[in-house]
Amino acid sequence: MYYEEFEIGQQFVLEPRTMPAEEIEQFARRYDPQWLHIDPGSAEQGPFHGIIASGFHTVSAVWGQWIESGHLGRQSVGGTGLSSLRWLHPVRAGDVLRTTAEVVSKVPSARGSRGAVTIRFETVNQEGKLVMTCEGTGLIQARNSVAPSAADA
Amino acid sequence: MYYEEFEIGQQFVLEPRTMPAEEIEQFARRYDPQWLHIDPGSAEQGPFHGIIASGFHTVSAVWGQWIESGHLGRQSVGGTGLSSLRWLHPVRAGDVLRTTAEVVSKVPSARGSRGAVTIRFETVNQEGKLVMTCEGTGLIQARNSVAPSAADA
Repeated sequence: MYYEEFEIGQQFVLEPRTMPAEEIEQFARRYDPQWLHIDPGSAEQGPFHGIIASGFHTVSAVWGQWIESGHLGRQSVGGTGLSSLRWLHPVRAGDVLRTTAEVVSKVPSARGSRGAVTIRFETVNQEGKLVMTCEGTGLIQARNSVAPSAADA
Repeated sequence: MYYEEFEIGQQFVLEPRTMPAEEIEQFARRYDPQWLHIDPGSAEQGPFHGIIASGFHTVSAVWGQWIESGHLGRQSVGGTGLSSLRWLHPVRAGDVLRTTAEVVSKVPSARGSRGAVTIRFETVNQEGKLVMTCEGTGLIQARNSVAPSAADA
């Protein structure tokens, strides 16, 4: 999708994503080897009474579903940042994550050939509990010039 | 480290982290299969003239170095969020990332048995270019009660 095709308020429902136990362990061993994520014995005695997924794993898995949805294609020219990421509820092995992505802002770049699009992600588990929210911003190529003008201000 | 041991302004220098080409591809294929990260031919023609690492990979790798540093131990009881994540410069295969972690805020929880600690991460590459900044917040167990009091206000 080109910059012009994104509209504020537009929503996309992503494919459900299951979080397998072995992937939770594999991700955590490399990127977040904390006892909560890799040590079943200690985690059982901990605040969540069992292993929970690394939050970095959860956000990466949700982002993967967004990319797999195909809306960011050849026009995507790089992410610039992520804000307001909140891990609200633990994610456990076998959880099925369902995410809604909503366009919350669009800002044309000074160059006019592209613009920044911000998408808000809300992820719930199979019980409908909100597990994560975040907003990601990326630069998207424009089909035509979208340089900011007095009319945009 | 217990909640009380973190002090605002405290800095930690993390071990350098090399980003291997095959890990960049492996991460991106699963979590961020965009052309910028997995298609060498298209990426060569793109804005960065070659493959760049997924930003989700970069932040996960930096977080991994933080955990490997050993400062978040058994006292860490879960991350709550990430804010102001900015990807400022592309990360490429072979880049060596050096990160400084600084304690920027501490907030005792109402329960008193723990508190939220926010750490700011600044990551540069082997040329000293700033590639990423972000702030992560997690709950850390207290050695003694740290309930908010009038003195803290």
